[in-house]
Amino acid sequence: MRRTVFNEDHESFRQTLRSFIEAEVVPHTDEWFAAGIVPRELYTKMGELGLFGITIPEEFGGAGIDSHKFLLVQYEESTRAGVTLGTNVHVLLALPYVLMLADDEQRKRFLPKFATGEEMWALAMTEPGTGSDLAGIRTTAKLSEDGTHYVLNGAKTFITGGVLADRVIVAARTSPARDDDRRFGLSLFAVDTSLPGYTVGRKLDKLGLRVEDTAELSFVDVKVPVEDLLGEENQGFSYLGKNLASERWGIAAGAYAQAAAAVRFAQQYVQERTVFGKSVASFQNTKFELAACKAEVDAAQAVVDRTLEALDAGELTPAEAASAKLFCTEVAHRVIDRCLQLHGGYGFMNEYPIARLYADNRVNRIYGGTSEIMKTIIAKDMGL
Amino acid sequence: MRRTVFNEDHESFRQTLRSFIEAEVVPHTDEWFAAGIVPRELYTKMGELGLFGITIPEEFGGAGIDSHKFLLVQYEESTRAGVTLGTNVHVLLALPYVLMLADDEQRKRFLPKFATGEEMWALAMTEPGTGSDLAGIRTTAKLSEDGTHYVLNGAKTFITGGVLADRVIVAARTSPARDDDRRFGLSLFAVDTSLPGYTVGRKLDKLGLRVEDTAELSFVDVKVPVEDLLGEENQGFSYLGKNLASERWGIAAGAYAQAAAAVRFAQQYVQERTVFGKSVASFQNTKFELAACKAEVDAAQAVVDRTLEALDAGELTPAEAASAKLFCTEVAHRVIDRCLQLHGGYGFMNEYPIARLYADNRVNRIYGGTSEIMKTIIAKDMGL
Amino acid sequence: MRRTVFNEDHESFRQTLRSFIEAEVVPHTDEWFAAGIVPRELYTKMGELGLFGITIPEEFGGAGIDSHKFLLVQYEESTRAGVTLGTNVHVLLALPYVLMLADDEQRKRFLPKFATGEEMWALAMTEPGTGSDLAGIRTTAKLSEDGTHYVLNGAKTFITGGVLADRVIVAARTSPARDDDRRFGLSLFAVDTSLPGYTVGRKLDKLGLRVEDTAELSFVDVKVPVEDLLGEENQGFSYLGKNLASERWGIAAGAYAQAAAAVRFAQQYVQERTVFGKSVASFQNTKFELAACKAEVDAAQAVVDRTLEALDAGELTPAEAASAKLFCTEVAHRVIDRCLQLHGGYGFMNEYPIARLYADNRVNRIYGGTSEIMKTIIAKDMGL
Amino acid sequence: MRRTVFNEDHESFRQTLRSFIEAEVVPHTDEWFAAGIVPRELYTKMGELGLFGITIPEEFGGAGIDSHKFLLVQYEESTRAGVTLGTNVHVLLALPYVLMLADDEQRKRFLPKFATGEEMWALAMTEPGTGSDLAGIRTTAKLSEDGTHYVLNGAKTFITGGVLADRVIVAARTSPARDDDRRFGLSLFAVDTSLPGYTVGRKLDKLGLRVEDTAELSFVDVKVPVEDLLGEENQGFSYLGKNLASERWGIAAGAYAQAAAAVRFAQQYVQERTVFGKSVASFQNTKFELAACKAEVDAAQAVVDRTLEALDAGELTPAEAASAKLFCTEVAHRVIDRCLQLHGGYGFMNEYPIARLYADNRVNRIYGGTSEIMKTIIAKDMGL
Repeated sequence: MRRTVFNEDHESFRQTLRSFIEAEVVPHTDEWFAAGIVPRELYTKMGELGLFGITIPEEFGGAGIDSHKFLLVQYEESTRAGVTLGTNVHVLLALPYVLMLADDEQRKRFLPKFATGEEMWALAMTEPGTGSDLAGIRTTAKLSEDGTHYVLNGAKTFITGGVLADRVIVAARTSPARDDDRRFGLSLFAVDTSLPGYTVGRKLDKLGLRVEDTAELSFVDVKVPVEDLLGEENQGFSYLGKNLASERWGIAAGAYAQAAAAVRFAQQYVQERTVFGKSVASFQNTKFELAACKAEVDAAQAVVDRTLEALDAGELTPAEAASAKLFCTEVAHRVIDRCLQLHGGYGFMNEYPIARLYADNRVNRIYGGTSEIMKTIIAKDMGL
Repeated sequence: MRRTVFNEDHESFRQTLRSFIEAEVVPHTDEWFAAGIVPRELYTKMGELGLFGITIPEEFGGAGIDSHKFLLVQYEESTRAGVTLGTNVHVLLALPYVLMLADDEQRKRFLPKFATGEEMWALAMTEPGTGSDLAGIRTTAKLSEDGTHYVLNGAKTFITGGVLADRVIVAARTSPARDDDRRFGLSLFAVDTSLPGYTVGRKLDKLGLRVEDTAELSFVDVKVPVEDLLGEENQGFSYLGKNLASERWGIAAGAYAQAAAAVRFAQQYVQERTVFGKSVASFQNTKFELAACKAEVDAAQAVVDRTLEALDAGELTPAEAASAKLFCTEVAHRVIDRCLQLHGGYGFMNEYPIARLYADNRVNRIYGGTSEIMKTIIAKDMGL
Repeated sequence: MRRTVFNEDHESFRQTLRSFIEAEVVPHTDEWFAAGIVPRELYTKMGELGLFGITIPEEFGGAGIDSHKFLLVQYEESTRAGVTLGTNVHVLLALPYVLMLADDEQRKRFLPKFATGEEMWALAMTEPGTGSDLAGIRTTAKLSEDGTHYVLNGAKTFITGGVLADRVIVAARTSPARDDDRRFGLSLFAVDTSLPGYTVGRKLDKLGLRVEDTAELSFVDVKVPVEDLLGEENQGFSYLGKNLASERWGIAAGAYAQAAAAVRFAQQYVQERTVFGKSVASFQNTKFELAACKAEVDAAQAVVDRTLEALDAGELTPAEAASAKLFCTEVAHRVIDRCLQLHGGYGFMNEYPIARLYADNRVNRIYGGTSEIMKTIIAKDMGL
Repeated sequence: MRRTVFNEDHESFRQTLRSFIEAEVVPHTDEWFAAGIVPRELYTKMGELGLFGITIPEEFGGAGIDSHKFLLVQYEESTRAGVTLGTNVHVLLALPYVLMLADDEQRKRFLPKFATGEEMWALAMTEPGTGSDLAGIRTTAKLSEDGTHYVLNGAKTFITGGVLADRVIVAARTSPARDDDRRFGLSLFAVDTSLPGYTVGRKLDKLGLRVEDTAELSFVDVKVPVEDLLGEENQGFSYLGKNLASERWGIAAGAYAQAAAAVRFAQQYVQERTVFGKSVASFQNTKFELAACKAEVDAAQAVVDRTLEALDAGELTPAEAASAKLFCTEVAHRVIDRCLQLHGGYGFMNEYPIARLYADNRVNRIYGGTSEIMKTIIAKDMGL
């Protein structure tokens, strides 16, 4: 169907990106997959291409475009090529905090390097044992006596991009919670990862997303300059969740793109492959499975495009974002499973992108809020 | 989510229709359900309200609006009230044939009565044993020696609206098929159902859609005036299927509206009902089930709205219509089943609209082309 | 697979029953379906055949066989023939109460007529608004001053077999609940339905099981002789639920039999029917759908046979019965839906048994405890 | 439910095995997982324990028990401990060929070392590009002029256990296919993997089953002594598939065991874990999900136990084995996915066994014949 969300600029960007991925990413995919990490240089190249600065104001080196459309193009193109770029945490998760909270001095200091990829960012909220309950954060940041820095102590886990990150937004407790306000006392810091006492622990071994490193972090008396406090002290909790609608839209859009890519991979496979002297594509079961997948992908695309327009217009509600995430991640789960099945034994081999998609995709229904949390949000919005 | 398909005219129409349904339909629903048919007068009232003439040119008594948006409003409002109006065959199926094929004389003769509901139309294609294979039609129409009429003989089955119809578009064979063109030889007639030899057989007992009568028809030497031939003689086959995209979109839209209504019914039920001293709505399972349903309905709405714009723009392809029908009817099936389950034992009682929806909805995946045919169409479009 | 649950006696019974159904039931199915009830004489004939007395001691006119195997044969044979006998309430629900609670005098009085079908029984627990929460029963039975009878007042709903029943086991309150024992005060009565003041209200219009009448009952000063009290006064609550494992096994077994029958119906249909010149059975989709259904039916049969042995041995736990009911009713739901789909438009016509099965089957996941209640029971048994 | 398949011997074996796994396997699981292979010594220890010789005649060092019950115990215990032993190919796949085809001399030579684990066996059928179509095998074995050996040339792929195997049953072409018998000309050889010209290629990187190595093999002028021909020359095709019922039963049983283990893992997790101050186990959704999984596992157990009895009795038909495999692997897929979801973010971490199960399990619906092939077999057996 003629999509209405993209114009010529987006299509031109798509061509540029497709060429970049073909030239700079595809040839190294297997190697990076085996290593479980991409080389740091990739991000510099992506920065040069302008991928990180799309929503950053022009004065700080960005393109100043307040839209998620280019991001959708990026999801579509990377999954189409069967690669994972691993930059979601930088652009989709971390950047909104900077744009929302950084003061003028910080914007000047942070954004240009963010845009070029010179400084890659990550987000460190979850702690061992806290899960989604951020009020339980135990990492502390104590203001030094001379008031020049905070002393950071604690540990974080499940930190995507934690190994390569140059700066990490850390949530830490600067005051005890108040009896009348359990949310008081958290603050956010843009922590320089080269500071003494900052340690990257083990890289976690995950079911999928092998190329996106996920790490544990620990902080022992890390001296974080007061200049790196983001937003107001003790008000961190109120900043969290401001960005959830776009984060969840991002996961929905990524899941849709994965499902669409899975259909493409399966389509190619069944057309090339023969069994018992017949093309796999010629079996009615193959046709019906792919057609059923296509209809689900069409629906996911309709959801993604519609919520994208709402998101760009600043109108996407938490419940709508939750609905889109819940739906699109379920679609991706079903579609990728069926498309893998059409690959037969090759679907179990990591050299085929469908096998990686299957493993990668499993986290979609979990991170950014599980499907169960999405349902809770939707139900509440329904007055239940 | 703010929907972009409706403007003030549609919302004003919605209010009018809602009032009409509350006043003229809802009070009689149980009675009509028990009778398995609506009274003929209902159609006259609907005609007066302008429901049949929306797409008919103004010169013939219609509103001259070339859009399916008012129809979508109608689906939403009737299912919301838990009623079936049974006029789809008149407006969605029969009318496009008249608009496409009727010559000037016929337009003047047919359309005004069509718009007012004075003449209700139906469509008679399927014959016992032919199913979707229209090339197998055995009803014959033989031109009389004096050339004034055709003599119609044969039988039709599964004719929705066949009991009340005043005029039925009948597909009949006027010449044998040609060796080089199996599709040659069919013609369409707008048959006056009061003609001698035209008989309505038994009303079929169906799983659902009890209020929409479905009949068998038989023709014994029915003399159909040549003036009632629609389009060119022997070219009937080429006219069939011209309207399939809108017909399938209509089923998709109706299924979406049913699913949306099911969620509303379940929501009301669980909020009013208590078990073991607790509101059914307060159980986590209830919340999660309804939230999961809501996310599917949101997706179906996105699909329906998007394909509606394409349909109104004349751009909806057969494969897109098939994809929308396949998806929305599957959603409706899943959603209505879950919403019925939330009703407990009352869900099995026909006095609750959810029970009727469950039975009615089952045909959505079958008529207008089964889900399997939809998959065939989609797969072909994918090059499989 | 060679089944181990049946021996020659069961197979001989199967043949007898099959002949009976062919001769006495099948020819009238459509008529009874239209009427929404079977004729009273059918039950007399079934009684003569010995169907009601299998588990009744020989001295009271039964066969004295403490096994549910003949019941399973009955489920298999009736669904295989596409008919509903509607005697579950008599044999599976009511009889165990009589066998458990009747004293010697009552056994002599009740059981022989029960076995012959001279007296058909039903069960009246549910009241408008109480649902599964039996502690909320408001029907009262007050002992008369002379101590010869109870005066029964109140109303019941959802009473299967209520229209034809000659005797109904009614749960009524004989004392107020105690503060320390909310379950105290209920008693069970074997109420003669011909007593003055006993009224059968409207027959409920249901989605399915049209042939099994379901009624509302009302009691206005019905004088129930003290001789018709079942078990001890005020201890009724402790008797309820004693029979739940066999009741739920019965629903599981019935659902399995429905699913197995659905596969047979679909298999016959697709082998007889051609579309576009090909047998429907020859399409890969048809084969795959039926094979998938067959595998589920095989599994359900394994579950039913295994729990049958446990039930006959007195070892079937509530959680195991719940697990079997949950599983088999889900299987039946999925399988019947797929088998209906293979029938195309005919699947929506009540003249085809698959359409009736589809409607009938929907209640399986609801009555005898909903799937949600089954899950609650299983979870509790898992220590959750 | 009291299971009837196991007696005291099996339960005693279960205890022994459980202790062995706790002591010898569990402590090394992470290490072996990281390495993607188990150490060779593990197999020697398993051989000492008697795990490989259960069905081998006593005269050759086995226990001489013609039953798969001990194997089922082994599946249950290994998955329960969250480990993969990777010996299925040795015992379930290779051994039946030896028992069926080896002559007396070969039995004396092969079986004792097989039983002790001194010689581990694998099976090499599939070639690059042939898939399930074994008639397309291109590896050749040409008898030497002096008649003492065959010269083996060709390549195999997807060879489970190929890296550690000491002897591999290789299917190779010894004569061209005949026009009237496409199946003529294949022979089976028990190839010593230490022969010159035998090379193990790369270990394939798989989605799951990381601990079970899967390799490519190549043969360049490998001189295989004529004494290592298994069965008759040119009759290899007739031997293939003789063992499919037990192989497929084995996959069904393994999948059931995985699903059962997944429920245990999830149960433990939700009972230990709290979110928002509440035990995860206390949420209704958790209870319902686990209960639904339990009911499916119960059904799979019923299927496995029933087919096990049939298999041991030599009565399990190909269609019944296919039905069991199809059903149990679908159950495992659904159950493991739901149990993973209950783990939240930890479900995506390989340190939790559920994550590994999720990945391992995906191949169950593919290998030993895909679900599609199972459906084909079942449908054929149904006369479709």
